[in-house]
Amino acid sequence: MAQRIAVGVLGARGKVGSQVCAAVDAADDLELVAEVDEDDDPRLLVERGAAVAVDFTHPDAVMGHLELCLAHGVHAVVGTTGFDDARLAALRAQVEQRPGVGVLVAPNFSIGALLMMRFAAEAAPHYESVEIVELHHPTKADAPSGTARRTAELVAAARREAGSPPAPDATSTALDGARGADVDGVPVHAVRLRGLVAHQEVLLGGSGETLTIRHDSFDRSSFAPGVLAAVRAIGDRPGLTVGLEHLLEL
Amino acid sequence: MAQRIAVGVLGARGKVGSQVCAAVDAADDLELVAEVDEDDDPRLLVERGAAVAVDFTHPDAVMGHLELCLAHGVHAVVGTTGFDDARLAALRAQVEQRPGVGVLVAPNFSIGALLMMRFAAEAAPHYESVEIVELHHPTKADAPSGTARRTAELVAAARREAGSPPAPDATSTALDGARGADVDGVPVHAVRLRGLVAHQEVLLGGSGETLTIRHDSFDRSSFAPGVLAAVRAIGDRPGLTVGLEHLLEL
Amino acid sequence: MAQRIAVGVLGARGKVGSQVCAAVDAADDLELVAEVDEDDDPRLLVERGAAVAVDFTHPDAVMGHLELCLAHGVHAVVGTTGFDDARLAALRAQVEQRPGVGVLVAPNFSIGALLMMRFAAEAAPHYESVEIVELHHPTKADAPSGTARRTAELVAAARREAGSPPAPDATSTALDGARGADVDGVPVHAVRLRGLVAHQEVLLGGSGETLTIRHDSFDRSSFAPGVLAAVRAIGDRPGLTVGLEHLLEL
Amino acid sequence: MAQRIAVGVLGARGKVGSQVCAAVDAADDLELVAEVDEDDDPRLLVERGAAVAVDFTHPDAVMGHLELCLAHGVHAVVGTTGFDDARLAALRAQVEQRPGVGVLVAPNFSIGALLMMRFAAEAAPHYESVEIVELHHPTKADAPSGTARRTAELVAAARREAGSPPAPDATSTALDGARGADVDGVPVHAVRLRGLVAHQEVLLGGSGETLTIRHDSFDRSSFAPGVLAAVRAIGDRPGLTVGLEHLLEL
Repeated sequence: MAQRIAVGVLGARGKVGSQVCAAVDAADDLELVAEVDEDDDPRLLVERGAAVAVDFTHPDAVMGHLELCLAHGVHAVVGTTGFDDARLAALRAQVEQRPGVGVLVAPNFSIGALLMMRFAAEAAPHYESVEIVELHHPTKADAPSGTARRTAELVAAARREAGSPPAPDATSTALDGARGADVDGVPVHAVRLRGLVAHQEVLLGGSGETLTIRHDSFDRSSFAPGVLAAVRAIGDRPGLTVGLEHLLEL
Repeated sequence: MAQRIAVGVLGARGKVGSQVCAAVDAADDLELVAEVDEDDDPRLLVERGAAVAVDFTHPDAVMGHLELCLAHGVHAVVGTTGFDDARLAALRAQVEQRPGVGVLVAPNFSIGALLMMRFAAEAAPHYESVEIVELHHPTKADAPSGTARRTAELVAAARREAGSPPAPDATSTALDGARGADVDGVPVHAVRLRGLVAHQEVLLGGSGETLTIRHDSFDRSSFAPGVLAAVRAIGDRPGLTVGLEHLLEL
Repeated sequence: MAQRIAVGVLGARGKVGSQVCAAVDAADDLELVAEVDEDDDPRLLVERGAAVAVDFTHPDAVMGHLELCLAHGVHAVVGTTGFDDARLAALRAQVEQRPGVGVLVAPNFSIGALLMMRFAAEAAPHYESVEIVELHHPTKADAPSGTARRTAELVAAARREAGSPPAPDATSTALDGARGADVDGVPVHAVRLRGLVAHQEVLLGGSGETLTIRHDSFDRSSFAPGVLAAVRAIGDRPGLTVGLEHLLEL
Repeated sequence: MAQRIAVGVLGARGKVGSQVCAAVDAADDLELVAEVDEDDDPRLLVERGAAVAVDFTHPDAVMGHLELCLAHGVHAVVGTTGFDDARLAALRAQVEQRPGVGVLVAPNFSIGALLMMRFAAEAAPHYESVEIVELHHPTKADAPSGTARRTAELVAAARREAGSPPAPDATSTALDGARGADVDGVPVHAVRLRGLVAHQEVLLGGSGETLTIRHDSFDRSSFAPGVLAAVRAIGDRPGLTVGLEHLLEL
């Protein structure tokens, strides 16, 4: 068997981080060498010889962690939020100083969600109509979801590039809100229902046929396969990569 | 074999009426004795001995047709629109003068749509959340559909009667329209997609589970079984009946 | 506020029982007075003054528990398996000796599954075709599921009673298994997929339309509302009741 | 406006051909110059100056038609069946004699079905489980459908290439047929329901999530956009192309 990859997890006792630890622990080809949380010294992961760091911490902490990783040649897989264009530009400059080190920053580690987005964007120019229905538990604060907005933007961009005309819609009398939210010309509908977790349907329609791409997340474990796949791939991908889909060629 | 029921169709060359004629013609236990359209004399159906008249005509014509039917003891199955409370009251008074004659006025002859509405109303008090997604072809003028509105009203009434609390919804930031139209407290979402015909989903959610009731109409023929079932049943149901569900005990 | 109902749970540390304890604990109108597991003396629930006992234990233990409950006038809600016709007859005779005490024996406490079954049976005679697709996690041992078999039997019985003809099926060349399992004349298809929990769709089809009734269980908590509803209702329903649907008029 | 493409249709009065004629007629950028059926002389399409021929005829007739097209430099879009490996090899040899002429032979002109198949194959290696449910009208003779078989083969090939292990399945007691037909290791379930047209779902499942790709054909017009897209593209694609997906880069 090939040597196992030594992995350190930052944010190891957080909601996501603890599941990453469990998943790394369960994988035959990975070894969990350091579990670091906010009261621990992040240098622990260097001391323990981590080859890859996984960071699900806080926007205030993550840049310091990445500096440490870059300084010691530790590859990094980052799910922490707060990476706007300015921060990404700063990070890119730092990464360029450290040839051979790979850093992935990704807002979404769900392989299914990423496939859904790509398939939706690829199919969109072949159809007259595209709408999105996302369905979540009723304790969610925002509507529509970030994934639904992002999907709508990708669909709209693909249609613009292909020169697709606007979707037909003869609605002349409507109750307020009936036709959903308009995201870049794509109607997005948000359902909130007790019992649900996180679900999304992209509906595409043309003459006499429809294509539906649906993603269902049933529990938090659904992002773990994406994190592990990134851990395995990042060592062969020096430089800064933004978006898991680019790392994994999803 | 039992004697066949003699049926006359008013509006026989209209979009719906012509399909009713075809369906009556194809049924072993029914006999199509009169096809009357706007240029024909409606008395034809009496002359031809119709036992039951089916009326898919116009609000301006239907009351005259019903007067003729009542005068000659012909039962009537009516899908023509325009029956508001005042008109129904007037019709009820007329029908009461003719004991033994049955008249059905129904806005919807789709057995599936009627079952969906009843099931939704019966299930609604057992769940915390109820939402409706209706999906139609993009040449439809109104949003949401009449069926979706009616379903929402029935759901809301059932929940009021059972003392159900409002559905949970923690949405604090939303794009306009994302959470759908509010019909009597029930969120209703209207999708318009090329390729679709007429579809509706009622989603009910409780702790750890959801129940979904979906009705798909693929073509206009879907109302024919309801019309034929009404033709067969109306002779045993004297007086005025409003709603196919009451005639067929759906 | 009305007095709370005192509840004792037998099998309190089991997979189901522990969740029942949590749900009782969380309900404002119920009080968890006794948690009994296999090493405890079941008389504890009498001593602690339980008005209702909930039993999710073992076929070997449950009859002794029920004897105790009946002797002390404690109502019982039983989800333990193993109640065949002989055992139900014996239990019915015992219950009749104790007027005023209510006992519910139910194989299924999911309100959604029970509604799905009833709706399917009611709708079935109105359609030409009925098929069932059940979808579960891939560690399930039996195919199709017990719920799918039971649904098929109820559908078949409703169609027999209504005199429905067999569903049309022109299949002349088929791969083995393609058309599913035949349960009482109803085709049942079993999907096994990683990520799923427990799901079932009943598909009904007629001329130009289909009606679909779908139930999704996302986690074990989905039976808890049914158990609590039974606890609240059993005191007003003396005698033996078999099936939650009869207690709750689902 | 650019010059319109002159199109001749062979099999112009057949079920598919007549709809192709209507679709060509309705397209602004195409001109229907010849409608040829079995009693007509196919040379008509050369006389009328067709740049592209569309052939939905019979296996016995199509090779003669293609000889004529090749001889006169007319591009061809062929949906006629019967092209086995031997026939394709013979055709390829003939086409190579006529540089500049493009011939497309395609078993399926539904863009949606082709997208579904590609997406399913691309997603399959990322999931532990894949199953297919196809749903059709009850007058269909074969089960499962050709599209479902083809999808299963593509999925199986993609998983073999990626080294995916077999899907997990702990089924130990099953009714005959419950787990569907085995096509190359992929379970395929065939539902037959009055009211349906042609539908297929590919279900993919991994840890805590599922991805579903569904294609619904509501009427025969659904293949027309694919035929028109092929007519527009074939002039720029000399040589023999097998499969619309290769012509359109679907």
